[in-house]
Amino acid sequence: METTAHTIREGEKETGRLEAFSDGVFAIAMTLLALDLQVPRVGAAVTRLSLSEALLKQWPAYLAFVTSFFTILIMWVNHHTVFRLVRRVNMRIMFANGMLLMMTTAVPFTTAVVATYMQTPAASVACAVYTGTFVLVAFSFNWLWFSITRSPEVLRSDASERTIEKISKNYRVGVPAYLIATALSFVDARLSVGLCSALWIFWSATAREV
Amino acid sequence: METTAHTIREGEKETGRLEAFSDGVFAIAMTLLALDLQVPRVGAAVTRLSLSEALLKQWPAYLAFVTSFFTILIMWVNHHTVFRLVRRVNMRIMFANGMLLMMTTAVPFTTAVVATYMQTPAASVACAVYTGTFVLVAFSFNWLWFSITRSPEVLRSDASERTIEKISKNYRVGVPAYLIATALSFVDARLSVGLCSALWIFWSATAREV
Amino acid sequence: METTAHTIREGEKETGRLEAFSDGVFAIAMTLLALDLQVPRVGAAVTRLSLSEALLKQWPAYLAFVTSFFTILIMWVNHHTVFRLVRRVNMRIMFANGMLLMMTTAVPFTTAVVATYMQTPAASVACAVYTGTFVLVAFSFNWLWFSITRSPEVLRSDASERTIEKISKNYRVGVPAYLIATALSFVDARLSVGLCSALWIFWSATAREV
Amino acid sequence: METTAHTIREGEKETGRLEAFSDGVFAIAMTLLALDLQVPRVGAAVTRLSLSEALLKQWPAYLAFVTSFFTILIMWVNHHTVFRLVRRVNMRIMFANGMLLMMTTAVPFTTAVVATYMQTPAASVACAVYTGTFVLVAFSFNWLWFSITRSPEVLRSDASERTIEKISKNYRVGVPAYLIATALSFVDARLSVGLCSALWIFWSATAREV
Repeated sequence: METTAHTIREGEKETGRLEAFSDGVFAIAMTLLALDLQVPRVGAAVTRLSLSEALLKQWPAYLAFVTSFFTILIMWVNHHTVFRLVRRVNMRIMFANGMLLMMTTAVPFTTAVVATYMQTPAASVACAVYTGTFVLVAFSFNWLWFSITRSPEVLRSDASERTIEKISKNYRVGVPAYLIATALSFVDARLSVGLCSALWIFWSATAREV
Repeated sequence: METTAHTIREGEKETGRLEAFSDGVFAIAMTLLALDLQVPRVGAAVTRLSLSEALLKQWPAYLAFVTSFFTILIMWVNHHTVFRLVRRVNMRIMFANGMLLMMTTAVPFTTAVVATYMQTPAASVACAVYTGTFVLVAFSFNWLWFSITRSPEVLRSDASERTIEKISKNYRVGVPAYLIATALSFVDARLSVGLCSALWIFWSATAREV
Repeated sequence: METTAHTIREGEKETGRLEAFSDGVFAIAMTLLALDLQVPRVGAAVTRLSLSEALLKQWPAYLAFVTSFFTILIMWVNHHTVFRLVRRVNMRIMFANGMLLMMTTAVPFTTAVVATYMQTPAASVACAVYTGTFVLVAFSFNWLWFSITRSPEVLRSDASERTIEKISKNYRVGVPAYLIATALSFVDARLSVGLCSALWIFWSATAREV
Repeated sequence: METTAHTIREGEKETGRLEAFSDGVFAIAMTLLALDLQVPRVGAAVTRLSLSEALLKQWPAYLAFVTSFFTILIMWVNHHTVFRLVRRVNMRIMFANGMLLMMTTAVPFTTAVVATYMQTPAASVACAVYTGTFVLVAFSFNWLWFSITRSPEVLRSDASERTIEKISKNYRVGVPAYLIATALSFVDARLSVGLCSALWIFWSATAREV
């Protein structure tokens, strides 16, 4: 009994460290595009108009910052939801989680690419890169979830079958949906980005339910 | 009884993770302008005078760093004061908190804008951008506080009515005060920045009281 | 008895703070090369082709990001494995750990060097810098492990002799193996990088066993 | 009795959050100069020699990175030593700690200035900026320590008089010693930097004793 209590506490400490580490990476990833919010250098004549124009011209940087911040926030919330059900971690989970964190860190980059090139003739390429990243993000979430659910000692004993089933079902949607979005990039970039936005609403709504 | 104790502990763990994650974002936001503290490149003749001049010429970067560091520190202290009263978090709080963190991360940028352009004919525009950010920061704090107080299970049982009332009253000042500061930007940029400074003193003084 | 329980708890809190701090540095080090993932600036004519080419031309940045992320992830996992056995920290451990963290933070830089220059006539130099960094990383791990094992009050009482022996044996391989890799740089850079990759597989496999 | 236990636990949670937040800032500050470790761009002819020369030419960046990393590590260790004695925090401590964190974040910048200009005729100016920063760092540590010791409810009950006295005595040395170093800058920059190094050895040695 003593030993069991001890082991559970150890497991929780381990899980806590993985969560704290992941939170650090999420925090960095979310704020990465703040580095692109640069004070514009206005030329010779600094006037109200020239500064306003220079600030407005940077709109893709603002758009990318806000979008990237919120998509990674939703990913963080989902990560949170998953790890609430975990009471210990193993190497498999650590590496699956690492893969997810790496893809998360790549999101600001591809978001900036799509924000910069959305209005150009190269929109489809930018959009395919963006949606392609989310195929890998969705794959990573599935891999992480699979690593968690396949080991019986990993899940908390009070994690209900229903909750597990629900998450599994939601995650199954991810990869095919983003593959469709990637394919759509070459048909209509705007539609593809629209599908991504719809999916983010889906992820935040379903995270809420669980 | 057992279950209640368990649930409270769970809720505290959850809250702890949200706080730790928020602290990560606050830490990054506070140090963001340290990246603008760059070693000046002096031209051909490196002399005591040329290096001193080059270092002094960067004063807007120093001013922006210090100002941004302390304003975000005060925001962190207020965040701290609020979450001392919280014993569990829900999705609504997570997203309101996310909005607040995003606005916090934008503060270094707008602070750098105002520090760079305060002495130019474009001061009013820079100042409006700066104060406008704080309208959104104040709005986010209110939204977060509203999300916390509207759910009875979120607040700690030992949070006194008086404390809650006091915070509500203080926060109510934020949005209108910063809206006035934004309007003032176009009348007298110096006055507008002065009002902001006065408000920061108010926020740190009131955080202390609670 | 009371005092002992208190002391153990204190020791764990201390260790927890060292771990959390280290995790912060690991998280920053892992994401450092995300800063090199920059939106490519295409010249006058933005076309699907020109953007694709510009994105592909950045492959060394992608390669460096992924490689650096995973090598530091494996280092984090090993750090984790080591500190699971630690119940208190002293100054010696703090400085050995600091040395390890500093070398970890240097890994993204040398990884970027090797990714950029691997295909050039300067490959051997780049490769020697890269592998030389890992000599120091391996040395730091050994120093940390030595600092931990030499003080009897540092290790947890439930740390088995076998586990300690195993880690000691694995770590002993590090320095000589990376020295060989460094020497190999000047013979065949490709072979040297291959040996490094083999070692990373070794480190992740052995971390799993313990 | 119940209430006291509760209050102590609350106090510890508060202190824990301040420590975790501070650790985040320390971790960022320590790794800040890793951003200056850039892959050198060799001109047209990439040869072993040209890459070696380009890498070696960056030595001030390496020196600054290593120096800044270890000085901030020693500051972190001292911060750690101080907060081991603290069981609760108040607003005064939060702001004193914030001042210390801000000065810490400025250290990489002034370290890079001194590393870049140490070998130039402007060495004395660079050195005065560097040592001047540490006057403020030492002042901040004293302010923090004063804020902690002046409130009887802040210190842990098991903090011995002797330990407190020792820290007070060590800290008293800081400001005058760095003021002397700053004055020395204009006499002999090398001597001034030497005094700083001696002081870092002193801080790490005394932190060890406590």
